[in-house]
Amino acid sequence: MPTPTPTTPQRDGFRMPGEFEPHAMCWMAWPERADNWRDGAGPAQRAYATVARAIAEFEPVTVCASAGQWARARASLPEHIRVVEMTLDDAWLRDQAPTFVINPKREVRGIDWRFNAWGVKYEPYANDDLAARKICELAGVARYRSDMVLEGGSIHVDGEGTCLTTEECLLNPNRNPLLTKAQIEANLRTYLGVSRVIWLREGVYRDDDTNGHVDLLACFVRPGVIALHWTEDEHDPQYARSQDAYARLSAATDARGRPFEIHKIHAPGVQTITQVEFDGLSRQGDGYAEERAPGRRMAASYINFYIANGGIVMPGFDDPADGPARAALQALFPERRVVQLPSREILLGGGNIHCITQQQPV
Amino acid sequence: MPTPTPTTPQRDGFRMPGEFEPHAMCWMAWPERADNWRDGAGPAQRAYATVARAIAEFEPVTVCASAGQWARARASLPEHIRVVEMTLDDAWLRDQAPTFVINPKREVRGIDWRFNAWGVKYEPYANDDLAARKICELAGVARYRSDMVLEGGSIHVDGEGTCLTTEECLLNPNRNPLLTKAQIEANLRTYLGVSRVIWLREGVYRDDDTNGHVDLLACFVRPGVIALHWTEDEHDPQYARSQDAYARLSAATDARGRPFEIHKIHAPGVQTITQVEFDGLSRQGDGYAEERAPGRRMAASYINFYIANGGIVMPGFDDPADGPARAALQALFPERRVVQLPSREILLGGGNIHCITQQQPV
Repeated sequence: MPTPTPTTPQRDGFRMPGEFEPHAMCWMAWPERADNWRDGAGPAQRAYATVARAIAEFEPVTVCASAGQWARARASLPEHIRVVEMTLDDAWLRDQAPTFVINPKREVRGIDWRFNAWGVKYEPYANDDLAARKICELAGVARYRSDMVLEGGSIHVDGEGTCLTTEECLLNPNRNPLLTKAQIEANLRTYLGVSRVIWLREGVYRDDDTNGHVDLLACFVRPGVIALHWTEDEHDPQYARSQDAYARLSAATDARGRPFEIHKIHAPGVQTITQVEFDGLSRQGDGYAEERAPGRRMAASYINFYIANGGIVMPGFDDPADGPARAALQALFPERRVVQLPSREILLGGGNIHCITQQQPV
Repeated sequence: MPTPTPTTPQRDGFRMPGEFEPHAMCWMAWPERADNWRDGAGPAQRAYATVARAIAEFEPVTVCASAGQWARARASLPEHIRVVEMTLDDAWLRDQAPTFVINPKREVRGIDWRFNAWGVKYEPYANDDLAARKICELAGVARYRSDMVLEGGSIHVDGEGTCLTTEECLLNPNRNPLLTKAQIEANLRTYLGVSRVIWLREGVYRDDDTNGHVDLLACFVRPGVIALHWTEDEHDPQYARSQDAYARLSAATDARGRPFEIHKIHAPGVQTITQVEFDGLSRQGDGYAEERAPGRRMAASYINFYIANGGIVMPGFDDPADGPARAALQALFPERRVVQLPSREILLGGGNIHCITQQQPV
């Protein structure tokens, strides 16, 4: 049961498994704050519900909704998707939920990182910082509370000792200004149970909300194999970022000494916020609206997909690149069924499918 | 997972086990409404926390607290007691939670009876009517929704085909005015998986809140053995009630044809509400305060104990009868450790330890 412990996962023989390892559950939240989700969050709720339904075809899904939204969430989702009450500040469980770790006996525990709303960008965030604890209690797993600020979207692991992250995010002074890079890396090692951390420089262009989470830029398909957000357009500010990531990954080896096989996933066309979309945001709260100005480019990436048991649930942007990206992922995951969903409403909120999910391993 | 089904537990091979059979969990809620719990519910919260701690020495406990009270509940309870968010109208999980049933493979399901606040005595009760559904989802068990109004405190079973209940409650027109006694009994049979229903007439005197729930009057110690609330005082209005129950039980046999061994548990002295206790109630809500007038007698009974794995958690009233009652229960349950707790603050709210608990079988 959820008992904070002064030890670390690594010392206790736990490691974070790769997302491609088997899951017991997918955790999601239910969007509602009208200053980040247009039109009273209705379109976002429909998009989240569509994602939840798609994932539930592959594995159990739990959706956490506030007391006020429970009835609406329950009515919007099929019976086989579990809906539980949880007070949250927003709906990005990749970043708010625990990072689950397992040991060789397949016992599961949760890491409860400090959460500060991506560098104190949005307040309040006290409830979001409690989410990991609450989910550990619901899941009935013991909990490690870390003093380090970290969001789940800023790391990817291969389950075999390698972690992928970005300097733009983890070294940003808005997260852990008192920790050195070496100290941060040491925390990743002891909590995630990894022995090698590969530092990419920057995340995806205009992913300012998260300061460049790696989960929009690159991810593990399986150990030794990486999918990378890519553009061939030299005039695109993303170009240098992807080039740099490619160079670093090409020069690196993983924890077991393997070089990486890198697959380029071409970005969709530039996605910008429309006036109508901006006008749908409430200006009431101490919220996100200013980050959502009309014409502003968003960090659209196919890399932000979720790996489910036997499935891939990936973003779609009604863009000519959708089909090729889907085909590319299907080729990378021949044993999984790829489902592509319209995800613009999630993108408008500042993330995508991977950002709103968190896997609990078997 | 929680899928309502048009079948019944009996048809599916499920039965309600006796409370003395092994539990996986005890469910409780967290009191907060100031019109039923004096002094802003603080004393009641401490009493509930004491009960939760006592039960948690024997089996896992989950406490359901509202979003607004989660932090307070979490801080008031030790880490090994799980606290989850749940919106409720009040805190009587015996009556709001599902009645759990099991089959020979020890699969567990929940019965979600209609709940109408003990005959529409207190409004609103919509959230309480949703509690069983929410708990089934949290527990990950399938759910039977019954059209019949029933509270868990109005039934006791021996797990071998026998149900104990009272006419005062189940035949009260404030519950199921359109159902005949035969129809109600048929529902008990098909949902609880019993073949014999033993109807006692009335519950405990002044148990007006529930209209005489059986769980203050009589319960199964094990199949064939019953503990009965008792008084030798012929001038006490309770006298005739206990005499009648004794007569009916003496004349009855259980589902397997056994006569009952009946153990009389002598009542505590008359417990009445004080002016100070009454004055501590908020008159703000559409609440309970009128039922709690100073000088009013309360339905104090030692029968309202909880049977935990290896333990008995029973009421105490700071009364001379406390010790004998405790000794009597210890003699009836030699293999369990009896814990007696001061329960006046729960009694003031209209029930006792059994009323605020609900066991989930293994």
